[in-house]
Amino acid sequence: MALALVHHPVVDKNGDTIAAAVTALDLHDISRAARTYGIGPFFVVTPLEDQQELVRSIADHWLSGVGADYNPDRKTALELIRLTDTLEEALETLKRDSGTDPQTVVTSARMQGSDLNYAGLRRLTASGRPILLVFGTAWGLAPELMQQADFRLAPITGCGEYNHLAVRSAVSIILDRMLGSDD
Amino acid sequence: MALALVHHPVVDKNGDTIAAAVTALDLHDISRAARTYGIGPFFVVTPLEDQQELVRSIADHWLSGVGADYNPDRKTALELIRLTDTLEEALETLKRDSGTDPQTVVTSARMQGSDLNYAGLRRLTASGRPILLVFGTAWGLAPELMQQADFRLAPITGCGEYNHLAVRSAVSIILDRMLGSDD
Repeated sequence: MALALVHHPVVDKNGDTIAAAVTALDLHDISRAARTYGIGPFFVVTPLEDQQELVRSIADHWLSGVGADYNPDRKTALELIRLTDTLEEALETLKRDSGTDPQTVVTSARMQGSDLNYAGLRRLTASGRPILLVFGTAWGLAPELMQQADFRLAPITGCGEYNHLAVRSAVSIILDRMLGSDD
Repeated sequence: MALALVHHPVVDKNGDTIAAAVTALDLHDISRAARTYGIGPFFVVTPLEDQQELVRSIADHWLSGVGADYNPDRKTALELIRLTDTLEEALETLKRDSGTDPQTVVTSARMQGSDLNYAGLRRLTASGRPILLVFGTAWGLAPELMQQADFRLAPITGCGEYNHLAVRSAVSIILDRMLGSDD
């Protein structure tokens, strides 16, 4: 099972399609969560050259720079990162590596018309077929990515109307609901 | 139910007691998770004057600065923050507000001798007695805080040996295990 964090195409608060900037802590927190739950690769999707350069410089610091000596656990996490220009490229990579078509599951806090709940996600996981779980930055994935996916996951609901988790939190909670055990 | 994020006393990677710096995204992500799951206040514990100033300036930006207009949802989250010098002060505040002694539950990724599992935590939550859920920054809470607490929560286990979630992720997962519903 793999993760993708998409920086383009995503929407801004007005619903316009943008390319979002990369947030360093997204790379750290999501890598660490992926490693904790035993999944990967973690695709960081951005077509912007300067943002790709930023991702590379962060990864290099922790994979082979002074960070690798200072905190080897961070190296173990960040080595899950694969940089791609597009979500299609991430899918192609997964397909090539696994020899089969991955199922794509998109996520959104404002999901309308979800067709997969968490019990369904656990069944899909147990089926053993490769899954690419897709998260958007900024105000979420662009509508075309939502429509093209195989499944649209139900949003995380807490206790009330407020529904504005950080993407770092949403990834952590969804991986725990899929793969965690609280016995 | 309330949360505390402790910056002193915590330990560094060598086990020495330190005062950790405040991370801006901890304030954002944990406030948003607390608001999503309907809990609060969120105590940010640091005795360092410059770090308290940093917390105030971040909160002010989103509570009454340009941030409040730009993103009112962030205001709704960050207004849960209460700044205290010590964990004792947070406990006193909770006690005064609720008129009863809160139960303290401490968390650690490297918890030895935990005496509360997640089923137990849900029972404690359902009992209605005020709970203060305590998280440490850096390499975790100092030993004396672990010993003084009423309960020591079992660590989050994923799928394997790797156990290095960001505190932002750990808070999100624990709140979801306590209060979330994935039906």
